[in-house]
Amino acid sequence: MRPAPSQEEVRRQNLGALLRFVHQHGAVSRAELTARTGLNRSTIGALTADLAAAGLVTEQAPRQTRRAGRPSPLVTPLSGAVCGYAVSVEVDRVQAARVGLGGVVLDRREAPRPPGSPVSASTDPLATFLTEMHTAAVGGAGPRTIGCGVAVTSRLRAPDGSVSRGVQPTEVDEPLRAMVTAALPDNPQLLTGGAADLAAYAEHTRGAATGQQNVIYLCGDGGLTAGIIADGRRFAGRQGTAGEVGHMVVRPDGYRCRCGSQGCWETEAGERALLHAAGASEQHGHEAVRAVVRAASFGDPTARAALRRVAEWLGLGTGNLINIFNPELVIFGGSLRDIFLAAAAPLRSRLNQVTLPEQLSGVRLRTPALGDDAALLGAAELAFEQLLADPLGSAAAA
Amino acid sequence: MRPAPSQEEVRRQNLGALLRFVHQHGAVSRAELTARTGLNRSTIGALTADLAAAGLVTEQAPRQTRRAGRPSPLVTPLSGAVCGYAVSVEVDRVQAARVGLGGVVLDRREAPRPPGSPVSASTDPLATFLTEMHTAAVGGAGPRTIGCGVAVTSRLRAPDGSVSRGVQPTEVDEPLRAMVTAALPDNPQLLTGGAADLAAYAEHTRGAATGQQNVIYLCGDGGLTAGIIADGRRFAGRQGTAGEVGHMVVRPDGYRCRCGSQGCWETEAGERALLHAAGASEQHGHEAVRAVVRAASFGDPTARAALRRVAEWLGLGTGNLINIFNPELVIFGGSLRDIFLAAAAPLRSRLNQVTLPEQLSGVRLRTPALGDDAALLGAAELAFEQLLADPLGSAAAA
Repeated sequence: MRPAPSQEEVRRQNLGALLRFVHQHGAVSRAELTARTGLNRSTIGALTADLAAAGLVTEQAPRQTRRAGRPSPLVTPLSGAVCGYAVSVEVDRVQAARVGLGGVVLDRREAPRPPGSPVSASTDPLATFLTEMHTAAVGGAGPRTIGCGVAVTSRLRAPDGSVSRGVQPTEVDEPLRAMVTAALPDNPQLLTGGAADLAAYAEHTRGAATGQQNVIYLCGDGGLTAGIIADGRRFAGRQGTAGEVGHMVVRPDGYRCRCGSQGCWETEAGERALLHAAGASEQHGHEAVRAVVRAASFGDPTARAALRRVAEWLGLGTGNLINIFNPELVIFGGSLRDIFLAAAAPLRSRLNQVTLPEQLSGVRLRTPALGDDAALLGAAELAFEQLLADPLGSAAAA
Repeated sequence: MRPAPSQEEVRRQNLGALLRFVHQHGAVSRAELTARTGLNRSTIGALTADLAAAGLVTEQAPRQTRRAGRPSPLVTPLSGAVCGYAVSVEVDRVQAARVGLGGVVLDRREAPRPPGSPVSASTDPLATFLTEMHTAAVGGAGPRTIGCGVAVTSRLRAPDGSVSRGVQPTEVDEPLRAMVTAALPDNPQLLTGGAADLAAYAEHTRGAATGQQNVIYLCGDGGLTAGIIADGRRFAGRQGTAGEVGHMVVRPDGYRCRCGSQGCWETEAGERALLHAAGASEQHGHEAVRAVVRAASFGDPTARAALRRVAEWLGLGTGNLINIFNPELVIFGGSLRDIFLAAAAPLRSRLNQVTLPEQLSGVRLRTPALGDDAALLGAAELAFEQLLADPLGSAAAA
């Protein structure tokens, strides 16, 4: 049973709601904050003054307007006041970023990731990046570090996207956790998530899915995973490993899957399926997918047939998910973006056959607004979770 | 943006949390409420006094204990103080119940539903039931009516469980809404939901899934639908029609489905699939399924093969859902209960092949604790929603 909050909790929640709003939407007038929250003007004034005193926002006189009366001050998030770190371990690269309030990327580094290398092989370059960025920041204004978010392609998958029996989410998380703890001296709060999950979160916070309540973000890098927004919230299941939609069996007499099962969706609709059908089994990654898409656009019959086939299977599985989740939005991320853009017609045709008409009406299919940065930006959002839940508590403690 | 609650909202939320707790768990001591909520003793005392003054609970001296000190009063929900109505339109019957606080069924009526009859044909007997129960209640103590919940087999399905193109949830809800409004004079709040959704809700509130955060309730009456508890909350999607798992395609070259697609899960794993495989296509309903299960247990080879085949497909699709949702619990309801109990071995064997080992570990498979009443009891929970959100507001307004 969760009781209602105490007075201090109420204040904390209100501070958090205000800071979250400007973090997500940028500079906003006090008048708009009043309208958005339903809190009265003096409460908003007191709360924004508290946030300003903590160095999290500034309050500035707005530009002159033609409206009568005193203009409402603009509340602006201070991107340099506190910072979070974001780390993303992707199929073919690793990234690290230092991010300010408002989601502003202040610094970022990236390195290629050797195909099939274990997560532990990525910790050295990432540690170097974090140390470099932290040193550069402390040398300057010295903002407080309030957290570190980590995205990994999938917490149940080996580096090549395969699922091998016996992987535990902790085996993926632990080396990264140790690396971050060693690299960042302030011992910031550390949270991890799957790449698709965090990409969905980022698109929901500041991308193609803002304001949407039920969203499926499909990520086709390596395997085929989904990030799920259910009733406006991240949904990740019991162990944080929901969304392994690539292992939904859609063709029981189909290809053997690397997970030990047979006919998994990703054996038909994933990146590897496309490259296999296009006669490029030995390749992998975005560039290889784009090469097939380009070849298809130039009329190469093998590439065209491969693209069409994979798009149809992508449509079939997406239809399954629409029947199951009744979402308003499906986003095709990673390599699936290229497949969707190049072969929307066969994809939609198969999807229309499979999906119940009532579930289909009103569903939109989209590409990510944040491109390939969605997972990294989602990790950055994790870094800010604690601050946004308790702006003065976290800021004071740091 | 949702701001933190005001003082009145805090009180309302605390009253709601207390009333919800005794509604769900029955009589409980003030001391336990204090421990469960973290609120202090005097606050709990004031809140329970308010609920008692509104006639929603009684506070009684407990039986003598051996412990030193003044014993803590028992707070008991008053099942006769207010009542909600629940209506359930099932494949082969309709039910109506009058339910008191604490989920106590005070009165109930049931009538068979002719196979394949439209929802509008069920409104006359249901209206009679509601009027009878309401008259009987008003003739007695005259409790206030605080809501009516309605469960329908599926809001996208025709009476026989098929999905016909063009069905809208409102077409199913509207005749029932008109009937309830006409039958119950107090114009109580009316909420509707799908049977699987509400069965999951009831099992989560007071059945096999209490305390669980991620639950799939599979309902096999007519078609194959799922009720979903995600992160501790009902999940029903954009239009309230999530969970149409029966139309997940699992065998694209399989049977033609009544929805117009091909190879849907319910063509392989549902009630009709079992009866078809057992050579009893013309039959339907629980009794027909039980007859096949009995025949299989007596060694009938056709029935055994049919049961085994359907159990395997049930295992495959359940494995898909476990990969997608990463739940801790799957409940087999309706006809699926009988199939699961009679053929757990082939079901589990196929499920184990399909499910990622890490998702599988820790998942429990269960039958409903509330039996065939789960949907009706879930509808009753809907009837109490408004009261539990605002105990004194609703009670005062009625």
